[in-house]
Amino acid sequence: MGLKTFDDYSNRLRKLSRNLYIAGDRVDRTDERLAGQLRIIKETYDRGNDPEWQDLCTTTSHLTGEKISRFTHIHQSTDDLLKKQLMTKLLCHRVGGCIMRCMGIDGMNALSVVTYEMDQVLGTDTNKNFLSYLRHWQDNDICANCAQTDTKGDRLKRPHEQADPDLYLRIVESRPDGIVVRGAKIDNTTAPVSDEIIAIPTRFMTEKDHDYAVAFAVPADLEGIKMLTRPAYHHRSKYLQAPISEMGDAESFTIFDDVFVPRERVFLDGKADPRQTPFAGFLALLFAHYHRHSYTGCKPAVSEVLASAAALVAEYSGIEKEDHVRDKLSHLIGTAELVFAAGQMSAYRAERSTSGTFIPDEILTNAGRRLAGEEIYNEYKIVADLAGGLCATMPFEEEFFSEETGDLANKYLMRNSRISSENQHRCFRGIEGLIVSELAGVTQVAGLHGGGSPQMETITMMSRYDLEGLKSIAKYLFGIEKDLPKYERSTVTPRKMLERYKKLAGGH
Amino acid sequence: MGLKTFDDYSNRLRKLSRNLYIAGDRVDRTDERLAGQLRIIKETYDRGNDPEWQDLCTTTSHLTGEKISRFTHIHQSTDDLLKKQLMTKLLCHRVGGCIMRCMGIDGMNALSVVTYEMDQVLGTDTNKNFLSYLRHWQDNDICANCAQTDTKGDRLKRPHEQADPDLYLRIVESRPDGIVVRGAKIDNTTAPVSDEIIAIPTRFMTEKDHDYAVAFAVPADLEGIKMLTRPAYHHRSKYLQAPISEMGDAESFTIFDDVFVPRERVFLDGKADPRQTPFAGFLALLFAHYHRHSYTGCKPAVSEVLASAAALVAEYSGIEKEDHVRDKLSHLIGTAELVFAAGQMSAYRAERSTSGTFIPDEILTNAGRRLAGEEIYNEYKIVADLAGGLCATMPFEEEFFSEETGDLANKYLMRNSRISSENQHRCFRGIEGLIVSELAGVTQVAGLHGGGSPQMETITMMSRYDLEGLKSIAKYLFGIEKDLPKYERSTVTPRKMLERYKKLAGGH
Amino acid sequence: MGLKTFDDYSNRLRKLSRNLYIAGDRVDRTDERLAGQLRIIKETYDRGNDPEWQDLCTTTSHLTGEKISRFTHIHQSTDDLLKKQLMTKLLCHRVGGCIMRCMGIDGMNALSVVTYEMDQVLGTDTNKNFLSYLRHWQDNDICANCAQTDTKGDRLKRPHEQADPDLYLRIVESRPDGIVVRGAKIDNTTAPVSDEIIAIPTRFMTEKDHDYAVAFAVPADLEGIKMLTRPAYHHRSKYLQAPISEMGDAESFTIFDDVFVPRERVFLDGKADPRQTPFAGFLALLFAHYHRHSYTGCKPAVSEVLASAAALVAEYSGIEKEDHVRDKLSHLIGTAELVFAAGQMSAYRAERSTSGTFIPDEILTNAGRRLAGEEIYNEYKIVADLAGGLCATMPFEEEFFSEETGDLANKYLMRNSRISSENQHRCFRGIEGLIVSELAGVTQVAGLHGGGSPQMETITMMSRYDLEGLKSIAKYLFGIEKDLPKYERSTVTPRKMLERYKKLAGGH
Amino acid sequence: MGLKTFDDYSNRLRKLSRNLYIAGDRVDRTDERLAGQLRIIKETYDRGNDPEWQDLCTTTSHLTGEKISRFTHIHQSTDDLLKKQLMTKLLCHRVGGCIMRCMGIDGMNALSVVTYEMDQVLGTDTNKNFLSYLRHWQDNDICANCAQTDTKGDRLKRPHEQADPDLYLRIVESRPDGIVVRGAKIDNTTAPVSDEIIAIPTRFMTEKDHDYAVAFAVPADLEGIKMLTRPAYHHRSKYLQAPISEMGDAESFTIFDDVFVPRERVFLDGKADPRQTPFAGFLALLFAHYHRHSYTGCKPAVSEVLASAAALVAEYSGIEKEDHVRDKLSHLIGTAELVFAAGQMSAYRAERSTSGTFIPDEILTNAGRRLAGEEIYNEYKIVADLAGGLCATMPFEEEFFSEETGDLANKYLMRNSRISSENQHRCFRGIEGLIVSELAGVTQVAGLHGGGSPQMETITMMSRYDLEGLKSIAKYLFGIEKDLPKYERSTVTPRKMLERYKKLAGGH
Repeated sequence: MGLKTFDDYSNRLRKLSRNLYIAGDRVDRTDERLAGQLRIIKETYDRGNDPEWQDLCTTTSHLTGEKISRFTHIHQSTDDLLKKQLMTKLLCHRVGGCIMRCMGIDGMNALSVVTYEMDQVLGTDTNKNFLSYLRHWQDNDICANCAQTDTKGDRLKRPHEQADPDLYLRIVESRPDGIVVRGAKIDNTTAPVSDEIIAIPTRFMTEKDHDYAVAFAVPADLEGIKMLTRPAYHHRSKYLQAPISEMGDAESFTIFDDVFVPRERVFLDGKADPRQTPFAGFLALLFAHYHRHSYTGCKPAVSEVLASAAALVAEYSGIEKEDHVRDKLSHLIGTAELVFAAGQMSAYRAERSTSGTFIPDEILTNAGRRLAGEEIYNEYKIVADLAGGLCATMPFEEEFFSEETGDLANKYLMRNSRISSENQHRCFRGIEGLIVSELAGVTQVAGLHGGGSPQMETITMMSRYDLEGLKSIAKYLFGIEKDLPKYERSTVTPRKMLERYKKLAGGH
Repeated sequence: MGLKTFDDYSNRLRKLSRNLYIAGDRVDRTDERLAGQLRIIKETYDRGNDPEWQDLCTTTSHLTGEKISRFTHIHQSTDDLLKKQLMTKLLCHRVGGCIMRCMGIDGMNALSVVTYEMDQVLGTDTNKNFLSYLRHWQDNDICANCAQTDTKGDRLKRPHEQADPDLYLRIVESRPDGIVVRGAKIDNTTAPVSDEIIAIPTRFMTEKDHDYAVAFAVPADLEGIKMLTRPAYHHRSKYLQAPISEMGDAESFTIFDDVFVPRERVFLDGKADPRQTPFAGFLALLFAHYHRHSYTGCKPAVSEVLASAAALVAEYSGIEKEDHVRDKLSHLIGTAELVFAAGQMSAYRAERSTSGTFIPDEILTNAGRRLAGEEIYNEYKIVADLAGGLCATMPFEEEFFSEETGDLANKYLMRNSRISSENQHRCFRGIEGLIVSELAGVTQVAGLHGGGSPQMETITMMSRYDLEGLKSIAKYLFGIEKDLPKYERSTVTPRKMLERYKKLAGGH
Repeated sequence: MGLKTFDDYSNRLRKLSRNLYIAGDRVDRTDERLAGQLRIIKETYDRGNDPEWQDLCTTTSHLTGEKISRFTHIHQSTDDLLKKQLMTKLLCHRVGGCIMRCMGIDGMNALSVVTYEMDQVLGTDTNKNFLSYLRHWQDNDICANCAQTDTKGDRLKRPHEQADPDLYLRIVESRPDGIVVRGAKIDNTTAPVSDEIIAIPTRFMTEKDHDYAVAFAVPADLEGIKMLTRPAYHHRSKYLQAPISEMGDAESFTIFDDVFVPRERVFLDGKADPRQTPFAGFLALLFAHYHRHSYTGCKPAVSEVLASAAALVAEYSGIEKEDHVRDKLSHLIGTAELVFAAGQMSAYRAERSTSGTFIPDEILTNAGRRLAGEEIYNEYKIVADLAGGLCATMPFEEEFFSEETGDLANKYLMRNSRISSENQHRCFRGIEGLIVSELAGVTQVAGLHGGGSPQMETITMMSRYDLEGLKSIAKYLFGIEKDLPKYERSTVTPRKMLERYKKLAGGH
Repeated sequence: MGLKTFDDYSNRLRKLSRNLYIAGDRVDRTDERLAGQLRIIKETYDRGNDPEWQDLCTTTSHLTGEKISRFTHIHQSTDDLLKKQLMTKLLCHRVGGCIMRCMGIDGMNALSVVTYEMDQVLGTDTNKNFLSYLRHWQDNDICANCAQTDTKGDRLKRPHEQADPDLYLRIVESRPDGIVVRGAKIDNTTAPVSDEIIAIPTRFMTEKDHDYAVAFAVPADLEGIKMLTRPAYHHRSKYLQAPISEMGDAESFTIFDDVFVPRERVFLDGKADPRQTPFAGFLALLFAHYHRHSYTGCKPAVSEVLASAAALVAEYSGIEKEDHVRDKLSHLIGTAELVFAAGQMSAYRAERSTSGTFIPDEILTNAGRRLAGEEIYNEYKIVADLAGGLCATMPFEEEFFSEETGDLANKYLMRNSRISSENQHRCFRGIEGLIVSELAGVTQVAGLHGGGSPQMETITMMSRYDLEGLKSIAKYLFGIEKDLPKYERSTVTPRKMLERYKKLAGGH
């Protein structure tokens, strides 16, 4: 069976070569600055092996019929999408933020569709490579990063127009046995503790960008890969052990310094076969889509974590029943509800692609993800509002435990005489970590940009939306057209997108 | 079979006595100032008899097995709720706003639950009365208003505390054969063209408010009922016939001047049986809930009508591809998508009550309705922004058709040479009606207050939400509690609400 | 002395020829559909002759030393700008909205600068014409419209690129004794009751647009001028006479059908002298600037009128002390305060141009006007929220005064027993007019677009702001530059703008 | 003369006893964790001694006629208020945030009014004590904290109702020679590096709270004072020295453990003289008012620092001219402009109190401060939006300077080939510090709560605003009142507030 334990995974990581760089040190995966992120990943393996969570965190492989982690599964149904979303939310509750393993499986789902569809159109056989790679994933409960964002240089220039041709990841050589790639990918969450790195394009590629139409998967320590690693933490605790203070993030600025990728791990190669170039954009969009759908699970969790903290501190301060407090809490809750519902309905409206993989509704997924992104900073504001200034000015923990100042510090922290001073301390300490730490800053930025900023979701929504159909309502009401067909918005479905790419591909 | 035509309905209306008052006149239902609202109601009967729409607009009665209008149906399944919501949206597209028949059937659904539940608890048999009344509805394809909002006098006083005891509708006499009621209900959309008026309480009633715990249904022209009627229109057209200019609203300020209601039409009577008093609040809330769920259908339609007009005028002005235009359109679209999805998911999460009637998710329905209410004025702002000042300063239609000024007016209106000047005229004329007419003002207010203002939805959300469960997340993360149960928000379901009311009722 | 009475003005209007068109009729200024707008204009003359208001509404002409209306004055000081702004606000309070005479004097102030500056640069002598025209204004207390907005056809094309060359007002012939102009101007508030029409360009003009670089002033009934007139009202009262119900707006879609303008009334003529073309943009911008500064007076008045109504209905409903009510009122008040303060500080920071005319701070004026525009729809939402649905569903006035329904209607309207039912009726009737009438729709659109939409203010702000200076802060803090000069934002002042135009003009 | 250098000040600090506690250590003011805050304070002394800044940063004492730092001055005119506000803004630019010395002088200005007014009413002579203390300030260029916020325990209980009577700072003994105080004050910015601590009440005190009506000033190391100190930093740099990375904050949770305050340093003593109790609220409000006015200087600076960084990164990424970028920048700029203008106009409208001290307009100051608070989180969102995800995922500095990865890191950071890679690095490193560091979190919270949260400003605005006067507008327009007095909003000025306190005081 494919389900592995955290120990299995840790043992694998330990064997990876030392290609991480943190603050001037070249380190391996046992560096203690990665402990926070490993603590989060641990949750995914532990719950997968926890009988109470198996209905949610495990499923049956459509390839092998074996029990596997849901983090290695290709969505075969609406129910799969619903469970992925719910699992994401519930696990995020337990770690107080990002669960770190979505992007890998989101990339795999996108590849499952695009490799299949491309084969159908071009007669290539990349899907075979993909399926064999998927088998490896499911057998080993792989943890991976999907590296999409190129460094991109001048934002208004296409890849081939950049002063330095390497500012987008590119194929410098394509040989029968594989490709050599050069470039860098950034914002690679989880990469420092991943078994594998999947690389895919960041945008649509034109006919002059064939070298940049590239997708592949490789072990995280393959020769030539260098990860400049950036960890971030909530404040770590010395006395008040608590889950929140154990969690951490690590991001990688990943350099591919002429890395050779064997052919069976290549999923897109526009340099060797320019007909594949149009599929770069399809893959970029489809990964973003799955990843935004995952955000309809994790972002409501973040809203609920913040709402939970806000409700707790309001209780401890005795203001829980005040009108303005309930109003503010209800906005955190309302955003969580609407975003989660958008993801659920996107699953209910999902379409089965010809590859068998289910694809959720794009417009609604994007509308939901966008609302989450628009609200993220406001959500922090609400927590800060209800917590008061103390969350930013708290003395350090030591002052609460020292002989000289401990009693005084605890005495003056008391608000609610029914709650122990320790728990009141824990509450403020926890909120300090949630909203005034470096990781808080990272979570804010991730809440805005992760999976694409609100601006990107607007672009996606508007490029999929059937605006002409929409106009038919006004045309009818204003007497410009005689009748109104039973109007329900239709969208450019993956199938229609495929048609577009076929046409583009047909041009070669 | 129960399905009727617009003619059947009109014939019934024509027979009602003259108890409407408009601008000093006592009139019957043929008064031409009601034509706009009748035009909207016509859409509901016509589509019900239109083969293309029957899947949506008709269904099978669970009472009789006969084909009936969905506007007379008690929801027996999630699918019923989904279809009601979709029907509402699609019909609203066709009339450019409110479809006018929701509140009646929303009231009936609430009664189907509350009469049943009350009978279970108290051993009364009001549900029998209700079912017999429902039969009348389904057999005749009844059009009704559900009158909820009392005039309420001083907002901070309970009904029995008011200077004038009639400021909430009350039972002045309860006799074996029926009750005599006095008071007034306001904001009664559709009442002027309704067959029947259903009256229900507007709030929770205390032990001192027994006389105000009252619900019943009566013919709209029953002796003692006086409807002070307020019609409103978009601008009406002389030359450019168009659906938008035919539609109208009519509201009633309905006075019950000692009206006798026969016992078989009484569904709640706290005066005769004070044990029934707690069910007043249950009924008030449940009607509001069904009505807010209906808003998840009609409000997305309003957003889409506005988006449609905005997209059309943007095309005609040549600015459709501008970034800021697409951004603004996407906000109209996004709101429509999120609100509609909230209603759909509320249906998917619906619970079957013991009466058999399905009840959608309350928190999500309220979150969706609230978003719609919060956005309504902003949506008008976006249309005005894209249409430009002309929509508020347009010369009258006559100037475009007169010999002296017609050619000049048409010449200078031209923006897009591929569109006829008439259609450009129609576009601006239509938008003028949509956003700068008296009915536009009514629609704004209705979009805010209809079914309850955002403030009411916040109160409902917060009174249903399991805040203690939510806090368990922070308690776990901050180390205050050892573990976190698999947290999914639970709510005070109708069943739990019933328990509350049972306890309250048990006090007598 | 220059100060005139409303009678003087009315007598002048009565003599104008019949070139207004309303709903198919050709009418003169005595048409009763213009009575509402005249009622507003009356306020400006009456207060000018009211001893209590003379400090504000009158001043001394810098041309003649005589006492004149401030509505005919060229700003000679910061104090003039402050008084203009305050006068605007206080008069708007009295009419419940737009005071109708700003745009004329705003256009005159812009002309006072641009004609002078152009003469300095080009050696022309248009300022002489302007001063002689100003003398006419001041001697007669002229009421004028400044017509700026062209119909503009395809928004993405320049004037000379349009399919029909007349879609921007243009000079079809330039002769020594004058020019012949053709085209149309729209959104011309007050034009139907104006003595004079001033026409100025709507945008910057390129070298191919010389014919469109035109500015002039003419009597409102000059041969060839046709005004397609659009009046709008709050609801008019039959029983409850009140200022609100007397007020009205009238807008003109003004057609210049080959109108001959004598040379002494021409202020810009790019056809005869292409060197003047760059000053078209300067004039367009400067008028917009003065007009936006006027909006910092009128829009706070609108916010305060709405706040006033909201506070009154809150008192009558007994909810005045509720937290959420005070919060909502405070937002109306806060917006009024900030916008008015922006206008005042713009006056304090004003610069004297070489012509002697004072020009307020552009960035701040635009920031203030923009905030007002962004908030306008939200302000209506707040009033609707506090007033409740009744403001949109009120029975007509007649129902409150008829024998059959009057007592009942008044009985059920009662909320606050310390207030007479008539006053409660007046309050709701007034709010109905303010927010659910056709004029309410017009005021919403005017609040957004008048003087330029928020988008236009953003463009202006960003084109004036010294962004490089701003960046010096980050460059210093980030160590990119060694020191930070004492940074205060500087802007492209009128003087700097003039330099630009000089350079442009120098190209010929 | 009173102006001192940073060295003078440092020498004083060095002599203070070790009563700071940081992370378990008892330390003095030389602890390196305070270096960041000292770096900021240094700016205030350096600029005070910098000839180019003397017009702004120094002035003439009204007590002695000597040249003093503006940070020790009592405002004698509108110009003083304007200069204080401008100085605050310009110095904040130089340190990238809070300038740390406002609260001291804000407290002194409040005391200058309240001690004087109280003496007038009660015949006490506290103002003499104050003036002598002020002399000490001006002679020594004192740096002080004004400690206002009590720990407050249960928010819904008054001081005397708390379970522990010490949860608000109180007088435990009042003797002829002085008072003994016990309690704690929190959120005390600058306190760790202050010469002096001024303590004032946090709220209005009732007749049962006499012991809590206390104000005084003491040396920061007086026996019994313990400061639990919390420093915070942007990220500190190893290679890229830059002002931003040198700056830091330090907050104190200050415990008064039975501290004896000599009588000449006591400014309010409700225990000895209960007639003084009403002045506690007056003092609390007046300090908040001066401090909010200071925020109209510092918050625009924060907005401009953020705007500056956003504009710089937009330039470096090549997107500076994009519409959406300019729109976002303009919102940062617009907020800065409006808030600063609100503060300036509050100065122009300031009133001279009988003590001679000028008091700015309260409603406008609060409206300005509130806008700043409402926008602060949104401002961070805009910077994050324009900077992209990299600001949260940047590799550490060392990776850019190591032999192994430096060249690669710098190569892939390149966006704009006209800018050196070091400067691009500096830009992202700076933004990382500004928005994703612990100090960023502190600045967010301070931007919301400092001087009082938006909620507090709303309360202040609404308690000062003349709502009855405002209603007169609607009453006139709606025909409820016959005429409208020339309405300008009037407020409860300090003089009127004093009348209130006199009445309250008269009760004893």
